[in-house]
Amino acid sequence: MFAFSRLQQVQHLRPVCLRSFSTNMGLNNLIFRQLFDTTSSTYTYLLADSKNREAILIDPVIDQVKRDWHLVQDLNLTLKYAVNTHMHADHITGTGELKKLSGCKSIISEASGAKADIYVKENDVIHFGEHKIKVLATPGHTNGCVTYYLSEESMAFTGDTLLIRGCGRTDFQEGNAASLYNNVHQKIFTMPDETKLYPAHDYKGMMSTTVDEEKRLNPRLTKSLDDFINIMDNLNLSYPKMIDKALPANKVCGLYEIPEEIAAKIK
Amino acid sequence: MFAFSRLQQVQHLRPVCLRSFSTNMGLNNLIFRQLFDTTSSTYTYLLADSKNREAILIDPVIDQVKRDWHLVQDLNLTLKYAVNTHMHADHITGTGELKKLSGCKSIISEASGAKADIYVKENDVIHFGEHKIKVLATPGHTNGCVTYYLSEESMAFTGDTLLIRGCGRTDFQEGNAASLYNNVHQKIFTMPDETKLYPAHDYKGMMSTTVDEEKRLNPRLTKSLDDFINIMDNLNLSYPKMIDKALPANKVCGLYEIPEEIAAKIK
Repeated sequence: MFAFSRLQQVQHLRPVCLRSFSTNMGLNNLIFRQLFDTTSSTYTYLLADSKNREAILIDPVIDQVKRDWHLVQDLNLTLKYAVNTHMHADHITGTGELKKLSGCKSIISEASGAKADIYVKENDVIHFGEHKIKVLATPGHTNGCVTYYLSEESMAFTGDTLLIRGCGRTDFQEGNAASLYNNVHQKIFTMPDETKLYPAHDYKGMMSTTVDEEKRLNPRLTKSLDDFINIMDNLNLSYPKMIDKALPANKVCGLYEIPEEIAAKIK
Repeated sequence: MFAFSRLQQVQHLRPVCLRSFSTNMGLNNLIFRQLFDTTSSTYTYLLADSKNREAILIDPVIDQVKRDWHLVQDLNLTLKYAVNTHMHADHITGTGELKKLSGCKSIISEASGAKADIYVKENDVIHFGEHKIKVLATPGHTNGCVTYYLSEESMAFTGDTLLIRGCGRTDFQEGNAASLYNNVHQKIFTMPDETKLYPAHDYKGMMSTTVDEEKRLNPRLTKSLDDFINIMDNLNLSYPKMIDKALPANKVCGLYEIPEEIAAKIK
């Protein structure tokens, strides 16, 4: 059995410790969970305010909606928003299913061309509990890509704009290498060095990075703009295997146009 | 019993911001990264002190040693220890390879029966920088299973003893369901509710849990001891496919007995 000193017990009750000892990691009563979909290598993020229990899910995946909804309920949270960083081409968003289960509102950027309950653009702010998420328009992978920035918590969710030691491809869905490069340099690399960056994907089992690391070590984005464009123009990537199924469904926020095999799987 | 020094207690009173804005998550200048091996669904954990840069890796996987070693170097860290929660049966530890690359020392429990540079047992403390890890003997999945507890950071690494809404199997390698149950209840469920728990595996894309959640929601460990034993006795799991290759190598800390196909892959 553990014997905690009286001093420690008392400290747990102090306001300071509330910041540090929230349900999982983090600052300012933030509940934070990273979740992974193995099939598409997508990260979904659950963020919530531990006081008023309002929660958001960033980039939910349709195949994982049951898991995510279960977790929301396990933690006694109310799902306020299902939020997407962009219109994904590699998986169907879980947004539509989550709306049906929870009554939450969907959010995506105006520029994405996808339907949602709420459209966001540069400098908009999304609120959950005491927390604020600033919307930064970071097109390049797609026209509608945004980065969600929690400056007080020193965290940003970069979608496919900036990956760990990589970045999203720019050869389809209005991709534009120069635009991606400039947005990363102007809007992400200008955040404080210690800012934790959480991408929409990783394929090597890495889960987060920091502004400092990517500024020093990103093999593409540390290059000059011209070299970067040259790299991106010569990746010779294959046609995304899910794109023709994912885009029609994601244009309507995953509410309709769900391919039969996926509809059967999530029943 | 924990012996908190006066110095430790005083450190709890220091400015919050230092605790909160370390390189990645966490408290008290802690650098923390969770890493994933898709093949064995194993989590590896990098922990380091952001001041003196001493690092440890918990449960490294041989197939991922290059990635992990790269990250240690990227973050300008010195790898002090490669630490195992137990002698794994589902993958070969990366400890041996990391020793060759970095000169770090290997750590495993005395009770594991595996070779290492340093053997630990109940109540031992592992130091890196200003951080302390307390060793809790939590046999049950194997005789040598331990949980590594960072009480100041409110984190514990439970290996296969306690998984997210689950636990390690107890039907091989000296498994003992009653022992696992009692150790979880006596040594993990008695930690503060908000303690973040990081397991050695997850198979559903979940990455962490808390004491509170597992006390409320673990489908096996919320049962009575008798019911738990009954559940564990009737899982009818198949023979672990890697065990005959993993155990001989892990008995010598992954330094020798590496199967040819793995040796070729990590070259």
